[in-house]
Amino acid sequence: MAPKYAPSLRARLPPVAFLLQTTFIVIFTFCVEIEDSRNEKEEVFIYTYAKFQDIHVMVFLGFGFLATFLVRYGFSSSAFNVLVAAMAVQWATILNGILMSQHFGDSKIHINLKSLVDAELCAASALVAMGAINGKTNPVQLLIFTLIEVTGFVLNQWLIQTLFKRPIQMHWLYSTTLINIFGGLFGLMTTRVLFRSKMEPKHEKEKVGRTSGLFAMFGTLFLWMFWPSLNSALESNIGRSEKRISVLCNTYLSLAVSAVTAMAFSVLSSSKGKMNLVHIQSSMLAGGIAVGGTVTLAPAPWVAMTIGFCASLLSTLGFRYLKDHMLFAFDCHDTNGVLFVHAVPGILGWFAQLILSLASISHSTIAVRFAVHHICILLITVSMSLVMGVITGLILKWKFWKPQLDRNCYDDQAFWEFPHLLTHK
Amino acid sequence: MAPKYAPSLRARLPPVAFLLQTTFIVIFTFCVEIEDSRNEKEEVFIYTYAKFQDIHVMVFLGFGFLATFLVRYGFSSSAFNVLVAAMAVQWATILNGILMSQHFGDSKIHINLKSLVDAELCAASALVAMGAINGKTNPVQLLIFTLIEVTGFVLNQWLIQTLFKRPIQMHWLYSTTLINIFGGLFGLMTTRVLFRSKMEPKHEKEKVGRTSGLFAMFGTLFLWMFWPSLNSALESNIGRSEKRISVLCNTYLSLAVSAVTAMAFSVLSSSKGKMNLVHIQSSMLAGGIAVGGTVTLAPAPWVAMTIGFCASLLSTLGFRYLKDHMLFAFDCHDTNGVLFVHAVPGILGWFAQLILSLASISHSTIAVRFAVHHICILLITVSMSLVMGVITGLILKWKFWKPQLDRNCYDDQAFWEFPHLLTHK
Amino acid sequence: MAPKYAPSLRARLPPVAFLLQTTFIVIFTFCVEIEDSRNEKEEVFIYTYAKFQDIHVMVFLGFGFLATFLVRYGFSSSAFNVLVAAMAVQWATILNGILMSQHFGDSKIHINLKSLVDAELCAASALVAMGAINGKTNPVQLLIFTLIEVTGFVLNQWLIQTLFKRPIQMHWLYSTTLINIFGGLFGLMTTRVLFRSKMEPKHEKEKVGRTSGLFAMFGTLFLWMFWPSLNSALESNIGRSEKRISVLCNTYLSLAVSAVTAMAFSVLSSSKGKMNLVHIQSSMLAGGIAVGGTVTLAPAPWVAMTIGFCASLLSTLGFRYLKDHMLFAFDCHDTNGVLFVHAVPGILGWFAQLILSLASISHSTIAVRFAVHHICILLITVSMSLVMGVITGLILKWKFWKPQLDRNCYDDQAFWEFPHLLTHK
Repeated sequence: MAPKYAPSLRARLPPVAFLLQTTFIVIFTFCVEIEDSRNEKEEVFIYTYAKFQDIHVMVFLGFGFLATFLVRYGFSSSAFNVLVAAMAVQWATILNGILMSQHFGDSKIHINLKSLVDAELCAASALVAMGAINGKTNPVQLLIFTLIEVTGFVLNQWLIQTLFKRPIQMHWLYSTTLINIFGGLFGLMTTRVLFRSKMEPKHEKEKVGRTSGLFAMFGTLFLWMFWPSLNSALESNIGRSEKRISVLCNTYLSLAVSAVTAMAFSVLSSSKGKMNLVHIQSSMLAGGIAVGGTVTLAPAPWVAMTIGFCASLLSTLGFRYLKDHMLFAFDCHDTNGVLFVHAVPGILGWFAQLILSLASISHSTIAVRFAVHHICILLITVSMSLVMGVITGLILKWKFWKPQLDRNCYDDQAFWEFPHLLTHK
Repeated sequence: MAPKYAPSLRARLPPVAFLLQTTFIVIFTFCVEIEDSRNEKEEVFIYTYAKFQDIHVMVFLGFGFLATFLVRYGFSSSAFNVLVAAMAVQWATILNGILMSQHFGDSKIHINLKSLVDAELCAASALVAMGAINGKTNPVQLLIFTLIEVTGFVLNQWLIQTLFKRPIQMHWLYSTTLINIFGGLFGLMTTRVLFRSKMEPKHEKEKVGRTSGLFAMFGTLFLWMFWPSLNSALESNIGRSEKRISVLCNTYLSLAVSAVTAMAFSVLSSSKGKMNLVHIQSSMLAGGIAVGGTVTLAPAPWVAMTIGFCASLLSTLGFRYLKDHMLFAFDCHDTNGVLFVHAVPGILGWFAQLILSLASISHSTIAVRFAVHHICILLITVSMSLVMGVITGLILKWKFWKPQLDRNCYDDQAFWEFPHLLTHK
Repeated sequence: MAPKYAPSLRARLPPVAFLLQTTFIVIFTFCVEIEDSRNEKEEVFIYTYAKFQDIHVMVFLGFGFLATFLVRYGFSSSAFNVLVAAMAVQWATILNGILMSQHFGDSKIHINLKSLVDAELCAASALVAMGAINGKTNPVQLLIFTLIEVTGFVLNQWLIQTLFKRPIQMHWLYSTTLINIFGGLFGLMTTRVLFRSKMEPKHEKEKVGRTSGLFAMFGTLFLWMFWPSLNSALESNIGRSEKRISVLCNTYLSLAVSAVTAMAFSVLSSSKGKMNLVHIQSSMLAGGIAVGGTVTLAPAPWVAMTIGFCASLLSTLGFRYLKDHMLFAFDCHDTNGVLFVHAVPGILGWFAQLILSLASISHSTIAVRFAVHHICILLITVSMSLVMGVITGLILKWKFWKPQLDRNCYDDQAFWEFPHLLTHK
């Protein structure tokens, strides 16, 4: 019954999705309650609501359309993004809730708008990771991948909080920078394990088209425009609300510099003096990622701009010169270039945060202690993401999930009903 | 002078639009004033403004682009949506204002941001209805259609309020669920009357394309992402503002479950195990529609999720198995599938509301009385929409409106100037 | 090394962009500080933040995608818009800051969210002007063009403030209407000077396509939907915050009327009774531009609607009948039609503001004085924009900037790397 060009998902996707969805509903039945918000201040609610909407747009629209640059994979990129994010958000709500309720000794998980924002941040880390395997995995694999990624990300946060006794103040997420580092490296290892040795190095369908590039531009712009809201998502939770102007302005300026730098260096690094749309779209986001860790330190604007400049430079050059090298040398095929778009700027931001923090600490003992903690957190996150990425890759390699054939990669035809093609336009 | 392939609208659309627009301006001149908002609390204004912007995006962008899946009808779908919504909003402002000013004994209509939100909700019901006749009617017919639909919808609300003496508290709209039930059934009857018997069952141009599907995805996502704001539009008006977190979280969770379910069952119901983009886009909204009636009752999250699951299931299966049946058995051609996307989930939500309300009422007399009222409101709405839909269909059948020819259906060429086609891409 | 079909920008764009960006970072290092916002009221912050996000979307997404109607120029339209806006925002922040700090006698520039909003409004005026030369200039020329335009615009505001001692209250921008008048006329003169006499009157690639039209519709709708936020951007700064409902409602109604009028008159003025998508997209914005000057006077809604009607009428007819005339009679090629979309509605709005103001002033001496001032401000702005537009045109004519060849106009191929074209779709 299945068409010869692609294995049918009829016996895989519906049962898995149905099972997971029913399990989530059952867990919600017994464990989740909506928090009574009568005591919350009106302004706090409205501000959270505004930020929530921005992050909501980023997670469900931005990441999905960012990946639509693949000329024949637009339906899948945008729709699977929704599928994965919708699952990830439910799962992250449960996991975050369990950790929170243990911490406060509640028997129930209490959710509110802030829980949804936190859950969407966890989903964002899964979507970052998904960028690396985009086009080479089917939706069942993506669901499994997402569940493990979200679990790993939450576990990593819990580990950091437990080991280092950070002032958590009702919040389990430590930094938006970690989202990108964890997600980027996790996805990278998974795609390494899933490497299809028989596939040609440059797949025929793995390219941008005139229309698909514009769709990707839409997604990119929504991510780019709302990144200040993402970076300020954690700020109100760490008790320094007077610094939110600094968070918004610094992220904004860093992103502006990042966009200019990406275009300039994309032209400079091309022998014909031409821009590459995919490089630009990816690298203009690097500034927002890198500055994520430092915004809460309220640096001067020029510091944020310099970080944006360096992140975008690293990202553009990495994309241009090292992406193919990664493929040939390490058999590591990274569809959206998450290594150079998310992981490298994230790590850059992490060290920028370290330097800026050290500069503000006068006492040398505290400074050394901070530096050790800070680097340990990075090492734990990196190890965790690499190990879990490999494990996930091994699980996804299982033939049971019916991965698509090599020639069906990056092609909507494998998963979507299409009407007969138009004979005349 | 008119081209042979489509009747010219030059003698129809400008006079009708000009006449209506001038009439509206004249009515505004004598009857409408902007309300002095000096006494309004700052937070209420900001919150209303945020919700207003979300609903504004849904009405003018979301509904229009949802319908752009038709491969050759993108210009018309998106632009006529703006035309119709812009007219509907003005007309609804006047009608709502008249009812309100009568109620309060004012001689003038006072408008503020909340009036615009209410007017946009009325416009939304017209846009839902328009989905059924999309592609088969010209803009003049759409204008007439919209005026009658909005009038009918406001009349229906007025009837319900008058007959059942609901606590109205400065608000004439009763429930967001009714928007979908009224709009869906109204459109369905109109399209039944307008049925073109000579047209082939499956029109050559009535299909989704690679690019048009992605545009529709954009529209769908904006509707999907901002649906929590739509459901919370009425919440602040019914004096239970402490429940708004419940409204937002429940709608959000219901929509998330709805999206997952739509994809799972679209695959399951396909013999080749493939997804259908149009089904998914429509059905992922069903959860938001169905949960619309129950959110103000602040149910537990799992209840909202279950409603989302059932609504999406009904919608996907209806779309897959019954849509063609509706066409062959009842001569009822429903372009966007409004019956299964809006009416059926709406009715499901209505009964969910009934059951949840009954469960919370301990006194049996009150419970019976509530149930009778609740079902009567549904019956009135259904009858009203069906009758007015038929009447509208009969009016639109009039040749005077110069409907497009069968072969020009679903085609922008009938209404839009096109440059010469590109010879090479 | 450079391909024969287009001059390489490798030796031009990166140095110019790098130099400008580094200079900006250096200026920021020594002169710019983020303002301490601890004393700001919570509601003011949230409201500014909401408006900021809307204007952010308009500037970085709206204007860019509005120009994507050019069938082969989508990448450039959207990406160069980001490049130009990102530069303009930084430059405008510096210039506005210098004027403000001089005024208050500070040694440093203090920025906050409001500074970013002001900077984005200056960037908007550059983007308006850019519409006239879109497709005929390379990104290096656009950068130079933007710097001069923003400088001119800020200088013009400063001149007006200094000469007429307006109550400035911490704000250097005088009216959103001036943005459109200045930008429109500036761009017009630049394109006149840059006129390519050898290019065919109607370039082969200067036309709308099925997909590019829909992308432009997206951009248009985001501008159209968020225009009320743009018009209210200055309102809170002029100390009449009780009038903001009036600003929002009036702009909203004016835009609704504008959209209906644009479609009606596009059909009426076509011999075949068909709509022209580009005309409609441009003219539906005219209402928001024209009403921009009068909203702060809080006129009755019908006045705003009438202004919207007249602006859209003028714009549609100008676009249809006079745009080609401008080209043949004055050698003035205006790609996006900024004269009829921005400048003419702006001037109409300016006179509407004059009439409405005069009607509310009872004392004749004050009225005459106001009228003289008001007309002088217009004349100064017009002269300033025309003169600076010519100068900019002369600077951009310099061959050093490597302008693209005539046959590469309106074509992404000149600036972007493309994969090999698809052989089958």
